[in-house]
This record gives sequence, C-alpha cells and structure tokens, in this order.
Amino acid sequence: METETTEYSFNIEYKHRVTFTQEIFNQKNKTLHSIITRNVTQEIPKALLVVDENVTLKNPLLKTKIVHYFQSFATSINYCGLLEYPGGETLKNDRTHLKDLYQKIEDHKLCRHSFVMALGGGALLDMVGFVSATAHRGILHIRIPTTSLSQGDGGVGVKNGINLFGKKNFIGAFAPPFAVINDTQFLETLSYRQLKDGYIEALKVALIRDPKFFQAIETHAPALIERDPATISWLIKKSAQHHIQHITESGDPFERKSIRPLDFGHWVAHRLESLSNFAITHGEAVAIGIAVDVVYSHLIDYLPKAEMEKILALITHFGFECYHPLLIKKNPSADYEILSGLDEFREHLGGRLSISLLRGIGNSVEVSQMDKNMILQAITLLRTPIQESL
Amino acid sequence: METETTEYSFNIEYKHRVTFTQEIFNQKNKTLHSIITRNVTQEIPKALLVVDENVTLKNPLLKTKIVHYFQSFATSINYCGLLEYPGGETLKNDRTHLKDLYQKIEDHKLCRHSFVMALGGGALLDMVGFVSATAHRGILHIRIPTTSLSQGDGGVGVKNGINLFGKKNFIGAFAPPFAVINDTQFLETLSYRQLKDGYIEALKVALIRDPKFFQAIETHAPALIERDPATISWLIKKSAQHHIQHITESGDPFERKSIRPLDFGHWVAHRLESLSNFAITHGEAVAIGIAVDVVYSHLIDYLPKAEMEKILALITHFGFECYHPLLIKKNPSADYEILSGLDEFREHLGGRLSISLLRGIGNSVEVSQMDKNMILQAITLLRTPIQESL
Repeated sequence: METETTEYSFNIEYKHRVTFTQEIFNQKNKTLHSIITRNVTQEIPKALLVVDENVTLKNPLLKTKIVHYFQSFATSINYCGLLEYPGGETLKNDRTHLKDLYQKIEDHKLCRHSFVMALGGGALLDMVGFVSATAHRGILHIRIPTTSLSQGDGGVGVKNGINLFGKKNFIGAFAPPFAVINDTQFLETLSYRQLKDGYIEALKVALIRDPKFFQAIETHAPALIERDPATISWLIKKSAQHHIQHITESGDPFERKSIRPLDFGHWVAHRLESLSNFAITHGEAVAIGIAVDVVYSHLIDYLPKAEMEKILALITHFGFECYHPLLIKKNPSADYEILSGLDEFREHLGGRLSISLLRGIGNSVEVSQMDKNMILQAITLLRTPIQESL
Repeated sequence: METETTEYSFNIEYKHRVTFTQEIFNQKNKTLHSIITRNVTQEIPKALLVVDENVTLKNPLLKTKIVHYFQSFATSINYCGLLEYPGGETLKNDRTHLKDLYQKIEDHKLCRHSFVMALGGGALLDMVGFVSATAHRGILHIRIPTTSLSQGDGGVGVKNGINLFGKKNFIGAFAPPFAVINDTQFLETLSYRQLKDGYIEALKVALIRDPKFFQAIETHAPALIERDPATISWLIKKSAQHHIQHITESGDPFERKSIRPLDFGHWVAHRLESLSNFAITHGEAVAIGIAVDVVYSHLIDYLPKAEMEKILALITHFGFECYHPLLIKKNPSADYEILSGLDEFREHLGGRLSISLLRGIGNSVEVSQMDKNMILQAITLLRTPIQESL
C-alpha cells in the first residue's frame, strides 16, 4: 500500500502586554481605553465587562466609576455593560454563569474583534478567560486581576480553566490574553489572609529563579507584614515579571513538555486544596507544599540545612502554617491521601513525573521521582515545631 | 498616576502532518502506529478512539480490524478502546456525547501525552477535536476523516467546534491536530450524494487559487461522476493540499484578520444550512453559495460571462442544484432570510465584512460590502434554468 506523509509547520506570534497602574477607572487614566482602541480600523469595538462580586462588595463606588468611565469614552468604545458573578472556586465548578456569559456574548453579538474584560480574582479570570477563548473560537480578552495572587501569578499567565470531576482546570485552554492590567489599588482592600497568598507565590518564584529577590523579600518582610502599599506593589510587580519571563522565555509557554518549575510545591498544594474542599486557600496550600518540598530537598542532601531553615522561617514569619493535619490523613486502604497528589500532578501535566526541588535558594532542579517514605519523614518533621525538630 | 506597560512576545511552532494511505487498520500498515509512538520517551502512550456510527454501519468489519490492529501493537500502545458516537450535526448540538467523552478521558486517566483519535465525518471530528483541545488544556489529537468533505477540507484544517444557540461552531478553538490520516478506502463506501460534497470544496479551492486545477477538474469530471477511485483520490489529495497550504502559508492560520478566501460561497451556505435545519448538506449549500457569488461577481463586472457559465455548468454537471427555494424565503418583516447570512458571517469572522468574489477562475478578491439588490438579482437569475436566463 502506498503511504505519503507531508509535514507542514507554521508559527503563531503571541503578544502579551502587562500594565501596572492605579485607578484604572479614573477618567484621566487612559490605559484601558487605549488598549481597547489600539487596533481599531473601522467599527467601534464592543466591550463587555465581568466583575467579581467580592470586589464590588469591597469597593462600593466601583460600579459607578465604571459607568462614568465608559460614558466618557462612549464615542470610541461600544460598552455592553457589566455582569456581576460570584468569585471563588464555585464559579469554576458550577455551569450557570458559564452559560450566562456565552448567552450574553450572543445577545450583544460580540465577535472576534470585540473584548470581554474580566475584573476579579483568579477563579473569575479563569472562567471568563475560558469562555472568551472558546466563544467564536476566541474573543479578545482583557484581564484585570484584583488579588495579590492573580496580579503576581495566575492573572499574568497564559492559562484559563474550569473544573470537572472535582479536578481543578480539568477543562481549559492556553490562550494568552490581549492584555493584563494590574491596578495596585485593589490590593489595598484585601485582608491580610488574601494578601499573603500573593507573598507566597512571590517567594516561590524567588526560590526557583532569583536568590537576590529572596534576600530582598526577607529584608522587606516586616514592611510586607505591615501592609506597606509601596512594598506590596514592588513585590507583586517583581513576582509578575518573573512569572511572565519564565513563561515567555522558557521555550515552553504552552507546557508541551513535563517540566514545570513554576509549579514548585504545587503537587502537595493541589491535593491539599482538594482534600480540604478548598477551605485552605491556594496560598496556604502552596506554603505547606513548599515547606514539604524544601524539607524533602534537605533530607535527600540537595539543600543545605541553613537555607532550609531560612525558607521555613520566612514562610512562618508571613503567618503561614508549614503543616496541616490533612497531610497525614489516610484513605480506607490505609494509604496517605496526600501521596496520590503525585499521580494527579503527573496526570494533569502529562507524561512522566517531573517535580522541582531545590539545590539552593534560587536554584531549582527537576527530579522524575520522589521517595514516599522520605516525603512522610519530611511531613513528620514539619508536624513538630521547627525549632524542636530540626 | 504612574502607568507602566511591558510587552512580551513569544512564538509557538505548530506542526501539522497529513498522511494519505489505504487500509489504515491493516496490521501491515504502520502509519498510525508510528504516529502514536513517534515521540515516546518512557511510558507507553494511551490512545482512545472515537468512531462515527455512520462509518461502522457501512464498514461491518471495521471494529474487528481495529481490535486486531491494536492487539498486534499491544506492547507499544496502551489502547483504551473504542467509543461509537452518532455522526452528523446533532452530535455538535447535543451535549450527551461531549460529557461522555470528558468522562472517558477521566476514567482512562488520559494526560497531555495521550492520544484521542477521531474517525468519521466532519461533525464528529469537530466535536472530538474540541474535547481533545480542552481536556487537560489539550490532549494529543489524531484525525482520521472518512468523508470526501472532511478528507479534502475541514479534517485537514486547524479548527474544531460545537454548536450553541443554533449557530454552527459558536464554541470552538484553533487547535492543530497532532496528525491527520486520510485513508482513501473509506471514500469507496460513500453515496454519490456524500462524495460530491468533497468535489464542491475542491472546486471552491480551485476557483480561488488555481485555474489549472479547475481545468483538470473539468477534464476529469466524467471520471469523478463515475466514481473512479484513482481520480477521486487525486482530487481529494489535491484539495487537501490546497487547503493546508492556504492555512499554513497565508500568514493567518488562526484567523485573526477578517479575510477568509477559503470561505468563498460560505455566507450563503451557512445560512441555507441553518434555514433548512441541516436538511441541505454542507456541500449542497456551498454549491448554491458559490453559484450566487459567481453570478454576483459577473453582475458587478468582475467575472466574464464565459467563465461564470463554465463554473455553473460544472457545478450542475456534478449533480448540484444552483438554486433553492429558501433563497427567496422572507421573514415576518418581509426581509429576505438569506440576507441576514451576511451579518452572521461578519459576526462570526469578526470585524468588518470581508467577502471573497471572483475576478476570474483562480483569482479571488475581497470586498467589504455586497449590494443587496444585486444579490437578489443573482438569485433571480439562478431561479430560472441557466440556459434560458443568461
């Protein structure tokens, strides 16, 4: 039989714009306006906004400001109004708002040259991003992250997703947004519990990429704990830059390979979040996940003791726990529930397992397996207060 | 206020492989096996197959052959079995099979390095392609198109989709498959009505790109009508190559701009399909759509009369109608239903309207508007037999 194969290859250039600003809906601030109108040739672009209820609750004047903002640009932006959805993980589990958003896109006759803007925390950005990426095979999408976590990490990335079968982001896509706008004023309305979730992701990226950034975080820890706005802005900006640089310069922005250093500490974190039914925040889970992998890195003689202690001390200093009782929960077959996080991690990322560990602060390495007994030993060490056990 | 924007850009390389073969599930044919195993480093890759019921009905031995094929490669492919779904447009409207496929992907613990293969007509490929593109943010996808239309046109492209709000592909993604395998033997089981749907898309691509191909189709029309297998293979292969070359070389494979010559005749076609509730096949609708835009091209003095007549004669020769009563159906406000196809076309493609017309055979041009009275005049001319009216 005759068989003939032809290979074709082509390149797609993706552009990613990240803006740091304040008072995005102050009429004197032209950032959003100029992003929406930058490529316009003929028709006035349509723009629909989805807002996280958590944000409008904390910013009572926000909706009025938004209305005035778009009124003042009515001749150049066809504003289609505002949808208010509840934020948080339930938005990614439930399909009501997903369907509503597709419906609104149809009602307003948005097209591939229209904009869907999302303002809120990571869960809302993920869900709205997924709908934007798939309606008409892709409507232009602008992200306006409002939490420290989404401004410094997820919101500036290229992924979106919704949950299925109780698994985070079981359905999703790689779809770089048209633009990301970080308004640092939103950070001022966050509780310290929310705020510090962004601190831990900044710490994470410092640990895998940049020892000087780690030192700077150590130095500025008191100001961060006291919620000094300028220091918070500095941290989140630096964290966002590291995240984007890793994504755009690593050679694998759409994660086709199995190596994923930005997910340092995340195999434990994802499992803990799910075991706790999302009662543990992402940042809290990442803190514990980092602690486990840091102690593990030390136990297998990768990471010097002094560096491990420095890292655990900083995590604790920010107010995070390094341990949670769910770490030693067993399933009916008497296996530790946390360990199945390794399989789930491998399965979601695909291919063979690849876990990032530390050789030093700012120096990550990939390993293709972990010793389960050694993991349990690390957990045992974290169970007792650091001072006593190590 | 201080505002700072950083632009990042990165490139993603997409590879597209198209193989023409016969007897894909003959154990001596290593095509599928070598595609699945080409990048394997450690674990044996999992592969799940979704098959169109229309195909298994017409090929009673197919399922047995498939089982034997994967049995013979059991040491190098972890075959996860076969799902049989009904083909056709209802598969893209209904969500039962979509949910079932996500569930099977979860049950078999497929990951980003696993394969979901789809064997069937365009609708099945579109639906399975969408699920593959979004489960775990993208599982490797192999398309095995079985109709002349999907082998020569849609199946070798980079799009997938499902329907919502009665609109074709309202939800979808641009996601080049890992590989496309065209087994020309499947074409032998098609009815002439199905077969000729592939002829019209070949004719379409000839009209917009290649006058010599048009001449060759004219020359070989008798053999195509007599269903000569070698001539059919030639036509479909040439059509597929033209489609892929257009996609990969046009500079806009993910359709970010508004120009879409491969959709020549399709603004009428999409509207007719939907008006007829998909009783008119895609090919039949495209034939009428081409006829309308060809006569229109002549009426505005773009296309010489002799060329128009040649094209209409060839369409008719293949057994297509150039007219359908739905072309003159009016809505309750007494507007012609077909004309709203222009708006829907613009809306789906995004931005300003861009319609391809012909300046000559093999020579398409883009226009940004069409005269509605002239369209109706073209329809009137097509309503009466060609010989009399022109």
